[in-house]
Amino acid sequence: MPLTDPDRLFPVDPATRDLARALYDSVTALPIVSPHGHCDPRWFAENARFPNPAELFVVPDHYVFRMLVSQGVPMADLGVPRLDGGASETDPRKIWNLFARHYHLFRGTPSAMWLDHSFEHLFGLDVPLSAETAGQYYDRIDEMLASEAFRPRALFERFDIEVLATTDSAIDDLRWHSATRQSGWNGRVITTYRPDAVVDPEFEGFAANVRTLGEMTGEDTSSWAGYLAAHRQRRAFFKTMGATASDHGHPSARTEDLDPAEAGRLLGKALAGTCTTDEADAFRGQMLTEMARMSLDDGLVLQIHPGSRRNHNAQVFRQFGRDKGFDIPGRTDYVADLKPLLDAVGMEPGLTVILFTLDETAYGRELAPLAGAYPVLRLGPPWWFFDSFEGIRRFRETTTETCGFYNTAGFNDDTRAFCSIPARHDVSRRSDCAYLATLVRTGRLREADAFDLAHDLSYGLAKKAYNL
Amino acid sequence: MPLTDPDRLFPVDPATRDLARALYDSVTALPIVSPHGHCDPRWFAENARFPNPAELFVVPDHYVFRMLVSQGVPMADLGVPRLDGGASETDPRKIWNLFARHYHLFRGTPSAMWLDHSFEHLFGLDVPLSAETAGQYYDRIDEMLASEAFRPRALFERFDIEVLATTDSAIDDLRWHSATRQSGWNGRVITTYRPDAVVDPEFEGFAANVRTLGEMTGEDTSSWAGYLAAHRQRRAFFKTMGATASDHGHPSARTEDLDPAEAGRLLGKALAGTCTTDEADAFRGQMLTEMARMSLDDGLVLQIHPGSRRNHNAQVFRQFGRDKGFDIPGRTDYVADLKPLLDAVGMEPGLTVILFTLDETAYGRELAPLAGAYPVLRLGPPWWFFDSFEGIRRFRETTTETCGFYNTAGFNDDTRAFCSIPARHDVSRRSDCAYLATLVRTGRLREADAFDLAHDLSYGLAKKAYNL
Amino acid sequence: MPLTDPDRLFPVDPATRDLARALYDSVTALPIVSPHGHCDPRWFAENARFPNPAELFVVPDHYVFRMLVSQGVPMADLGVPRLDGGASETDPRKIWNLFARHYHLFRGTPSAMWLDHSFEHLFGLDVPLSAETAGQYYDRIDEMLASEAFRPRALFERFDIEVLATTDSAIDDLRWHSATRQSGWNGRVITTYRPDAVVDPEFEGFAANVRTLGEMTGEDTSSWAGYLAAHRQRRAFFKTMGATASDHGHPSARTEDLDPAEAGRLLGKALAGTCTTDEADAFRGQMLTEMARMSLDDGLVLQIHPGSRRNHNAQVFRQFGRDKGFDIPGRTDYVADLKPLLDAVGMEPGLTVILFTLDETAYGRELAPLAGAYPVLRLGPPWWFFDSFEGIRRFRETTTETCGFYNTAGFNDDTRAFCSIPARHDVSRRSDCAYLATLVRTGRLREADAFDLAHDLSYGLAKKAYNL
Repeated sequence: MPLTDPDRLFPVDPATRDLARALYDSVTALPIVSPHGHCDPRWFAENARFPNPAELFVVPDHYVFRMLVSQGVPMADLGVPRLDGGASETDPRKIWNLFARHYHLFRGTPSAMWLDHSFEHLFGLDVPLSAETAGQYYDRIDEMLASEAFRPRALFERFDIEVLATTDSAIDDLRWHSATRQSGWNGRVITTYRPDAVVDPEFEGFAANVRTLGEMTGEDTSSWAGYLAAHRQRRAFFKTMGATASDHGHPSARTEDLDPAEAGRLLGKALAGTCTTDEADAFRGQMLTEMARMSLDDGLVLQIHPGSRRNHNAQVFRQFGRDKGFDIPGRTDYVADLKPLLDAVGMEPGLTVILFTLDETAYGRELAPLAGAYPVLRLGPPWWFFDSFEGIRRFRETTTETCGFYNTAGFNDDTRAFCSIPARHDVSRRSDCAYLATLVRTGRLREADAFDLAHDLSYGLAKKAYNL
Repeated sequence: MPLTDPDRLFPVDPATRDLARALYDSVTALPIVSPHGHCDPRWFAENARFPNPAELFVVPDHYVFRMLVSQGVPMADLGVPRLDGGASETDPRKIWNLFARHYHLFRGTPSAMWLDHSFEHLFGLDVPLSAETAGQYYDRIDEMLASEAFRPRALFERFDIEVLATTDSAIDDLRWHSATRQSGWNGRVITTYRPDAVVDPEFEGFAANVRTLGEMTGEDTSSWAGYLAAHRQRRAFFKTMGATASDHGHPSARTEDLDPAEAGRLLGKALAGTCTTDEADAFRGQMLTEMARMSLDDGLVLQIHPGSRRNHNAQVFRQFGRDKGFDIPGRTDYVADLKPLLDAVGMEPGLTVILFTLDETAYGRELAPLAGAYPVLRLGPPWWFFDSFEGIRRFRETTTETCGFYNTAGFNDDTRAFCSIPARHDVSRRSDCAYLATLVRTGRLREADAFDLAHDLSYGLAKKAYNL
Repeated sequence: MPLTDPDRLFPVDPATRDLARALYDSVTALPIVSPHGHCDPRWFAENARFPNPAELFVVPDHYVFRMLVSQGVPMADLGVPRLDGGASETDPRKIWNLFARHYHLFRGTPSAMWLDHSFEHLFGLDVPLSAETAGQYYDRIDEMLASEAFRPRALFERFDIEVLATTDSAIDDLRWHSATRQSGWNGRVITTYRPDAVVDPEFEGFAANVRTLGEMTGEDTSSWAGYLAAHRQRRAFFKTMGATASDHGHPSARTEDLDPAEAGRLLGKALAGTCTTDEADAFRGQMLTEMARMSLDDGLVLQIHPGSRRNHNAQVFRQFGRDKGFDIPGRTDYVADLKPLLDAVGMEPGLTVILFTLDETAYGRELAPLAGAYPVLRLGPPWWFFDSFEGIRRFRETTTETCGFYNTAGFNDDTRAFCSIPARHDVSRRSDCAYLATLVRTGRLREADAFDLAHDLSYGLAKKAYNL
C-alpha cells in the first residue's frame, strides 16, 4: 500500500472527486515556480551531499522539532544547536530514532503529508515511519543521499523547478548566488531583498548592521538620504542576482508616510538605540512606504509578512536563538495600518504589493476587500501554519467571493526543507483543484473556466505576480 | 446550455441534493420581501426606461467596478462620474465592452452568479459574456430595456415583490415616494428612516443638515430637546410613507446613555464642528439609544449597520466621492459597545433591534450569544461582502447552534442593482435550503421542521422582524 | 420513528459515513470520563429523587431558559428564582408547558439534540416535544423520576461514568464530597479547586471570602505569604477529596509574574476594595502564575477558562444574580497575556495547563501555535457555546494541522444538566469520528491510526491530561 493516497485531498463525493482529479491531472506536469522560500543558496553553489537523514528532515525544520518539544522532548536532544554553550545531540541516528518514536504526533498534520510524500516519492519507502522502521528508514535515506542523484542540483532538476527564490539579508554578499551563476549550472536560483536586519531598530545588532550597509555601499547611512541611497544600491545589486522582489517580516502591518525630517530623526534614534517600542514600529512602517516608492522605480515586488510575535519564549530564545518554533501569531489590523502606504502609492500602475497574514480573520474582513479594490494589492497564499489543506480551503472560501482569483498571487512554498517543495506544491495544487471542482459541481463556476483557473493557480499567477 | 446550473448551490451528495431541491421547490413561488435596500424611489415614481446596459449593470454597482479597478482599470473609464471636474467615459457601449473584456475576473464570485442570473432569466441570454459576445449582449439588453415590460414597475411586478423598502435621508422630502403613492400604481414601495447625515458629526455638511432638519420641522435643532423633537417629527412623516424601520450606518457599534445635559453639550460641539473623534463617536452612540427610545413609542424597527471604514482611499474619495468601492470593514466589538443601549432598553417588550456585521468573527463570539439572550435583538442576514453562498453558510453554521433560527431576521438584498434582486433572493433561498438539507441528513433537524423553516427563512421571518 | 437519527452527525457521503459509524462503534462502549463540569455534589451524597421535569430540564439550565427569554418569555415565568424578592413561577407543570410550547426555538441547536437524546434514551419517549405532547411528557418523566432507577447514583452507574469532577469553591467545606465518600457508594465523584471567589478582587464579597479562607486554614490571609499558604493548604484538602485539577474563570487570559512585594501590595488593595479595574486584572493574573507554581509541587492540573463578560445585563443580574444566561464572550489575547506565566513555567516538565476559549479566532492564530510549542500546554475541548457539532468541527479543523491531536485534552461536558452528560459525550464522540473519517477518506490519516485516535479522543486523552 502506498504511504500516500493517490486521491488525497480530493472531495469525497465521487463525481466531485472525478472532476478534481481531472483538474489536477491537467496541472500535475507543470514546472514548479517557487517565488518565496528559505532554501540555503549554498546548496546550489557547492552542490555537496546532504549530510544525513536527521540533518535533512529534523534539525533544520521548526515544524518538526516544535511538535516534539510540545510533548516534552528537549530541543537539544533533537540536535538543535545551542547558542549558550550547552550540549546538543550530535549522533544523527539517535536524533532520527527519537523523531521516529514520536512520529504519531504528526497524525493529521501537513508535516506528516509532506514527510510521507518525500519518503515515498523520493526515497521509495512504503512502510510508515515508526520506532520499528526507524533503522530501515535511516539506512535507506542515508544510502540514497550518498548518490549523485540526490545532490541539490540533481534534486532541483528532478523536482522540475523552473525558478526558486531564496531570501537573503540586505547585507549578505550573495557569494553563493554568485558562485552558482558562475558555475555554469543553469538552474534558475534567484535572491530576494530582505532588509529586516537594517530596517528594524529592534533587530539584534541593528546599528552595526546599518554601519555595514554603509560600508558595503559607500553611503553615509547615518543620514536619512544616505541610508535610503544605500538601500537603492543594494536593491540594484540584488537585481543582478535575479531578485524580482523584496520581503519584509514585521510584527505589525503598520505603515507610515512621514516627512523626511521626521524619518531622519527616527533613524538617528534607532541608530542610537533610543527608540521607544512605538518609534521602532513607526520606523519599520516608514520603511515599508519607502520600499514601495523604490519599487516604483526599480520594479521589485513588495512582500509584507506581518503579525508574528517572534521568539515568544525567553528561555528558548536565550538557549537556541531565532526561528526555533516559538514564533506565535497575533492579531493584525491591515485596514488602519496600510492606509498611509496605500494613500501614498495604492493606485500606482506597475506596483505590486503582496500581503500575507497569520491572522485568518483578516481574509474576509480586511484583505479580500482591500485586494478587491486597490490595484497595487495582491494576496499571498496561506502562510506558515496555514499552508495546508484546511488553510487553503479557508483562504479560498473567505477571499474568492470578494476579490476573485485574479487578485491572488499563486503559491509560495516558503520552506527551508528542500525535499518538501514538491510535496507542498502538490498539496496546493490538489487543494485548489478540490475547491474548483466543488465550485463547478455547485454551479458557481463553469467547467472550462475551472481548467483555466487550475493552470493559473498552479503556475500562471505566481509568474505574473512576481514578474518571473 | 443554461448560463446558470438549475441545481446551483445545492449540496453535492445526491440524497442531500434531492432534499435541498425539494425544500427550494417549496419556497420558490413565495413573493419577495425586501425590507432593506438602496433602490432609487424615483424609478417607481417616474417609471422611465433604464437608459442602457452600462448604466443598468456597471456604472452604479460598486461590486462590479471595484473588481475592475482592482485589476488596474481606471474608474473613470467605467463611467463613474467624477466630482473633481475630470472626465469620465460617457459612451455606454465602450463601458460595456470594457466590462465584458474583464468578465473573467468575476469567476467564482456572487457578482457573476447575480449577473448571469439576470442575463439568462431576464434577458434570455444563453452564452457567457466575454469580449466576443459583448456586442450581442449590449444589443439584446438595450432592445429589451426599450420595451414596456422592462420599465421599473413592470419589473417590480414580474419579480413578484410584495414589498420593497428604500433607504432615504432624514432630510429627504420623499417626493418620489409621494408621487408613487399618488400615481395609483399599487406596488408597495416604502421608505426607511436613515438619519446618518444629521446624527453623524463627521458627515459632510452635518451642521447645515441639522439646520435643514430644523427648517423642515419648525424645531430649534440647536437645542437638544428641539433636535430630538425634530427627529420624532420626521420619523412620523416617514411612517406616512410606509416606513417600519430606521437604519444607521456607523463606523462602530458604540452606544451611549448620557444624561441630557451632556448629550446637549455634545450636540453643541458637533454643530460647531469642534467634536474630537471620540466625541463624534459618542454622539452617534447616544443617538442610537435615543432612536431606540423613540422606537418604544413609534414602533420603528432599529437597524444597526456598523463597522465600515468608509472612503478608505483618499484619492478615490477626492475624485469620485462616497460609496465608490473603497469602504473596507474593520473589527467591531458588540459586547462592550451595545451595553449602554441594552442596559437601557434591552429587555423591553415590543422593541426590535436588528444587528448587522462586517466582522464575521462576531457571529459566534458576540452576536449569537447576544441575540440568544436579549429579547429585543435579532440578527440581520449576512451583509455586503458576505451576502453570498459561503457567507450565508458561515452565518448559519456559527449562529444557529447558539441562537437558533428564530432570532434571525430573514433576508435583505441590500442592493442598488434592481435586476439583481431576484437573483439575490434566489441565492439566499438556495443557500438556506442547502443548509437545512444538511441538517436533516445529519440528524440535526426533522424533515417536517425543515420545510417550516424554509418558509420562515424565505418569507416569514422578514415580515415578522420588520412588522411588514 | 426514533427522536434521534442513529446516524446523526456522521458525514453524508455514504462511504465516509460507513467509516465514521465503524469508528463510533469502536468507542461507544467506553466509559465516560468527565474531568470538568458543574454537577451538584449533593446529588450523590443524598441520592434523593430529582423533584420534577421542570427542575430537571428547565429551571437550572441556562442554555434552555436563555433561548426562551430571547424570544420574550419572562425569566420568572420559567421558575428561575429571583434575588430581589419578586415572584417566580413555582408550578412545575406550568413551567414545563411553557417550555414545550416554545420547543421549536431549539430547532438546529445542540440543546435540542441533548434534550431529545435524554427524552428518547433515558425516558423512552418517541414523539417530539410540543404543546400537544407536553402533558404526556411531563407525566412520563415525573413517573420515572420517582423510581429508584432514576436516583442520581443509579443514573451515574447507568451512564457508565468512570469518574466525574465537580467544581467547588476554594472555601467550600466539601461536605457533600465527604458524605459521598463515607457512604460506601463507590462511584468516583471528585472535586476541582475553583478559587475565583478568593482570587478575584471583583467577586462579590471578596474580602469576606478571603477572611473565611484564613479562618478555614489558620493562616493570616491578609499577608501575601499567609494568603499563598492558605491556598496551598486548601489545595491539599481538595486533593483528599480526589481533586486532580484547579480551575479559573477570568475575564481575560492575563497573567503576571510580579515580585512578592508588589503582589502583596495588590492583595492589600484588593482586600481594602481599592483596586482599579486594571489592578484587579493584574491580581487575578498574578494568581494564575502562583497557582501554576503550586502545581509544580502538588501536581494539580491548571485549567484556564477566560473571556466571558459575565452578567452583561444589569437588570437580569440585579433580579436573578450570576450565571443566568447573560454572560457574553469577548476577544481574548492569549499570546501577550500568557507570556509572563509561560516565561516562568512554560517549559517545566510535569506541569499541565489546559486552555479553553470563547474566542474561536484564537484556535488557529494563537492557541494551536502555543500548544504546538510549549510542553506544559494542552487545549481544552470547545467550550460553552461551541460544545456542539459545528464547534467541534471548527476546533479540529483549525487546530489539528498546527498542534496535532496529542496536544488536546479530550472532552469535557462542562454541564450542570446531569441527564445531558451521555448526550454530550455522544455528540463529541460522533463529531470526532466524523472528522477522523473525513481525514481518512481524503488521504490525511491512515485508517488504523483513526481507530487509535477515536479511542484517545473519547477516553485516553482526558485521563492522561487530568491524571485520572
